[in-house]
Amino acid sequence: MVGSPVVNRLVIIGVGLIGGSLARALKAVGYCGEIVGAGRSPDHLQLAMELGVVDRTETDLGAAVSEADVVVVAVPLGAMRDLFRRLAGVLPESCVLTDAGSAKGCVIEDVRSAFGGIPDRFVPGHPIAGTEKSGVAASFADLFRTRRVILTPLAETDHDARDTVAAMWEATGAEVTEMGVAHHDEVLAATSHLPHLLAFSLVDTLSRMDDRAEIFRFAAGGFRDFTRIASSDPQMWHDICVANRAPLLQALAAFNRDLTDLARAIETADSEEVLRIFRHAKTARDNLYRD
Amino acid sequence: MVGSPVVNRLVIIGVGLIGGSLARALKAVGYCGEIVGAGRSPDHLQLAMELGVVDRTETDLGAAVSEADVVVVAVPLGAMRDLFRRLAGVLPESCVLTDAGSAKGCVIEDVRSAFGGIPDRFVPGHPIAGTEKSGVAASFADLFRTRRVILTPLAETDHDARDTVAAMWEATGAEVTEMGVAHHDEVLAATSHLPHLLAFSLVDTLSRMDDRAEIFRFAAGGFRDFTRIASSDPQMWHDICVANRAPLLQALAAFNRDLTDLARAIETADSEEVLRIFRHAKTARDNLYRD
Repeated sequence: MVGSPVVNRLVIIGVGLIGGSLARALKAVGYCGEIVGAGRSPDHLQLAMELGVVDRTETDLGAAVSEADVVVVAVPLGAMRDLFRRLAGVLPESCVLTDAGSAKGCVIEDVRSAFGGIPDRFVPGHPIAGTEKSGVAASFADLFRTRRVILTPLAETDHDARDTVAAMWEATGAEVTEMGVAHHDEVLAATSHLPHLLAFSLVDTLSRMDDRAEIFRFAAGGFRDFTRIASSDPQMWHDICVANRAPLLQALAAFNRDLTDLARAIETADSEEVLRIFRHAKTARDNLYRD
Repeated sequence: MVGSPVVNRLVIIGVGLIGGSLARALKAVGYCGEIVGAGRSPDHLQLAMELGVVDRTETDLGAAVSEADVVVVAVPLGAMRDLFRRLAGVLPESCVLTDAGSAKGCVIEDVRSAFGGIPDRFVPGHPIAGTEKSGVAASFADLFRTRRVILTPLAETDHDARDTVAAMWEATGAEVTEMGVAHHDEVLAATSHLPHLLAFSLVDTLSRMDDRAEIFRFAAGGFRDFTRIASSDPQMWHDICVANRAPLLQALAAFNRDLTDLARAIETADSEEVLRIFRHAKTARDNLYRD
């Protein structure tokens, strides 16, 4: 990035892993004249300042978004509704509004109810990136590099606003694509929300077994990787699972049907069927990644 | 390790990831006078020779175990029964026999039926180590370092034989512990076999969904770790799941009961219950590992 900044004033509401990493990435390329970090916790914002993640912080929402060109909402899904309600009264008319929520249908409903309709400068977004860590201390500038960001623009969405948000994410090194809202929520339920649900549930089950001490003592490397996502933030994943529950429960039902069939094949020692499923899964996984 | 070898002639039947890594680890400390690799595939054994994993190879089982002091059976669980039957006629009386099978009840039954009882020099064993890779090319000397090896000696098992096997594994850097057979199979079903089952099943389900291309395309880092074990050897895991199916299906039933409760809590947006489970799981996982 050379020359003058593309965005004059960018405001990030919720400077955690995602918001903090976005700020770091945009700072690294001089994309913004000023990056303002906003939120409710002065301690949290002060840490973001100390880490050099943002240029200025505000706990007052009106002061934060005053004269903003772009506002990125990166708070947990469960905090979106209340935030959009407060934002509706203070957001400058010309300001582009986007979010980083892991489910899109619920965010769009929150915006619609808060603003009494979809503002034409609102661009729903979702960076497919993250780790099991959370908080600004875990943020880093390369989090989005080569990762995908999905935008789910609506009929009401202004093309310039969409282009502004797409260009911002591209400046972090991400690849931006578009998708329908319902489709996004189904795909993410299957590929992200369901695995988290299974990992949390399995660790919970094992941790309540009588021989839990030995179960965990004799866990091998595979278990460590398999359960890593169960170390994710419980509140954040609660919000996602509840907000996106219809597609999530649908994906879970499909999984359960297949798992029941597999269990029956194992019970009856139906080697051909068990092998067929395991081989099919291995082929799919191997095609996906070269670990 | 200094001075003369502890074991004169060690025979490893099945020179794959586990057998090959055991050979490499014992070679590195000069633990054996000679390490013989045995198996049915000349090509496979030749690769083990070329990699310097073993000193000599034999495809003839009688020739392989002749004058052996210790025989380690590291073939897949499904190949154990036939192997023990062939071994029963040729194993020297004084030779210590052990195995590296991931389930112990089934191996012990295979030995009992092959030998017409439990030989007093048979020590069932299970190194809790491995990766999603398999084959001798993936073997390495440090695979067992700081990992646990569980022995499940029986009433018939000779103490000297047990000590010989324990000392051999300790020479690889592993920590050796003992456990009852049924308890071992329950603990490993919960901590290893069930996660593999879930990972294979999930990847299979997702790979058959209509929007599978996008599901995999938008999978993030968490999915990669969660599904790594679905890249494991299908035949090996078929053998384990079928051989240890009673404890595995019991663990699966416990998991399913809890998962059903969790799904109901999500469906009814019972935030308190969802958060309780997620927090409990995160605490258990965080206490287990410091990633």
